Amino acid sequence: MPRPVKFFYDLLSTHSRALYMFFEATKIPYDPIPVCATKGEHLTDEYRECVNRFQQVPSIIDDGFKLSNGVTILKYLIREKLIPEHWYPRDSQLRAKIDEYLEWQHDNSSKVCNAFVQEKWSLLNIEDERSSEQKVEEYRRQMEQNLNQLEREWLVPGRFIIGDRITIADILAACEIEQPKIVGMDPFQGRPKLAAWLEKVRYTMTPYYQEAHQDFYKFTEKASVKN
Amino acid sequence: MPRPVKFFYDLLSTHSRALYMFFEATKIPYDPIPVCATKGEHLTDEYRECVNRFQQVPSIIDDGFKLSNGVTILKYLIREKLIPEHWYPRDSQLRAKIDEYLEWQHDNSSKVCNAFVQEKWSLLNIEDERSSEQKVEEYRRQMEQNLNQLEREWLVPGRFIIGDRITIADILAACEIEQPKIVGMDPFQGRPKLAAWLEKVRYTMTPYYQEAHQDFYKFTEKASVKN
Repeated sequence: MPRPVKFFYDLLSTHSRALYMFFEATKIPYDPIPVCATKGEHLTDEYRECVNRFQQVPSIIDDGFKLSNGVTILKYLIREKLIPEHWYPRDSQLRAKIDEYLEWQHDNSSKVCNAFVQEKWSLLNIEDERSSEQKVEEYRRQMEQNLNQLEREWLVPGRFIIGDRITIADILAACEIEQPKIVGMDPFQGRPKLAAWLEKVRYTMTPYYQEAHQDFYKFTEKASVKN
Repeated sequence: MPRPVKFFYDLLSTHSRALYMFFEATKIPYDPIPVCATKGEHLTDEYRECVNRFQQVPSIIDDGFKLSNGVTILKYLIREKLIPEHWYPRDSQLRAKIDEYLEWQHDNSSKVCNAFVQEKWSLLNIEDERSSEQKVEEYRRQMEQNLNQLEREWLVPGRFIIGDRITIADILAACEIEQPKIVGMDPFQGRPKLAAWLEKVRYTMTPYYQEAHQDFYKFTEKASVKN
């Protein structure tokens, strides 16, 4: 009987939510260890020494092997554990298409989404003097462009991002696209393909999607009341 | 006899240089098609339709299959062609470590390096009014931090980034770390481990490293005279 994978996560982080759903849906034995990143629990010396030298969330320890980064962990688990084929098909061209999407997301929407959420969050809550309405607007504009590109170039009605079955691309994308709700932006407004695709992901991942997003939705609600 | 892979590249792009070296070193039959990105040759309708819908460089077409993004293309070629094992070992933990490095690079040095080079380039050459010395200094500071982290956390004297043999992590890293030379920054100054590692990569990849960087070095020389 293999030892459960130790999983260090904070459900306010996009990759943590994707991994939580993946662990639950695939029934990989795991030992959940919540880490509150907003309280800096990942910034202790103990976390650096025992879990991850870059103090990242999510991280795993699998039978003594330490690993960080959501995409890297997903691909490692797919190699190491018994996982249904559809998550990351062995077909080389399908796999390449999933990788191409993930790199596109990393280069485009992730970068802009993080910058927008951080900048707007600082402006609303921290009153950081380096933040400005102008910067927020610039990031918002870039973010709208990226979401439009996703709607136009990547999504086909009735399908997942790559093919007819759900893959790691869908869960990583869904968790990220939800993120700007933290600062009161609705990414689905005016994007019918994006909204329909998210419903498909959410339905396919029920009840894990809802479990993974429960705390996140509470947090966004509290933030929107405050703002 | 398989048809050669069509390879669209510009040697001023970091991923194009890494792929060029990889094609040459592994002897994968390929058909080199230079694309001058500074002249916007990748921004034509023909390029979008026939090569890559996102108009990216590098891109490949392998027996009709179109693919973009350097990391994605490298991993695709490794699955599809006869490639020596050391480039991306099948050992799951080594592979995870390479992926973890590549994601770290993407999240850290790539992001900051691109921003720094673009910002400084605009300030020196285009006199874009949105550029400023202050922004350049902020990116330079972040870039120095990243290079220090690379020196401190990833490099072990006498070794490659992951293990004792060269991998895709080394060629992708080397090409990127050379990039700030375009704006007159020497990334190796005060970083002996980084300098020694680059020499090791360069030596291992001779003469392909020099071929891949020939135009780039000429360009950086011209740029430094101009600035």
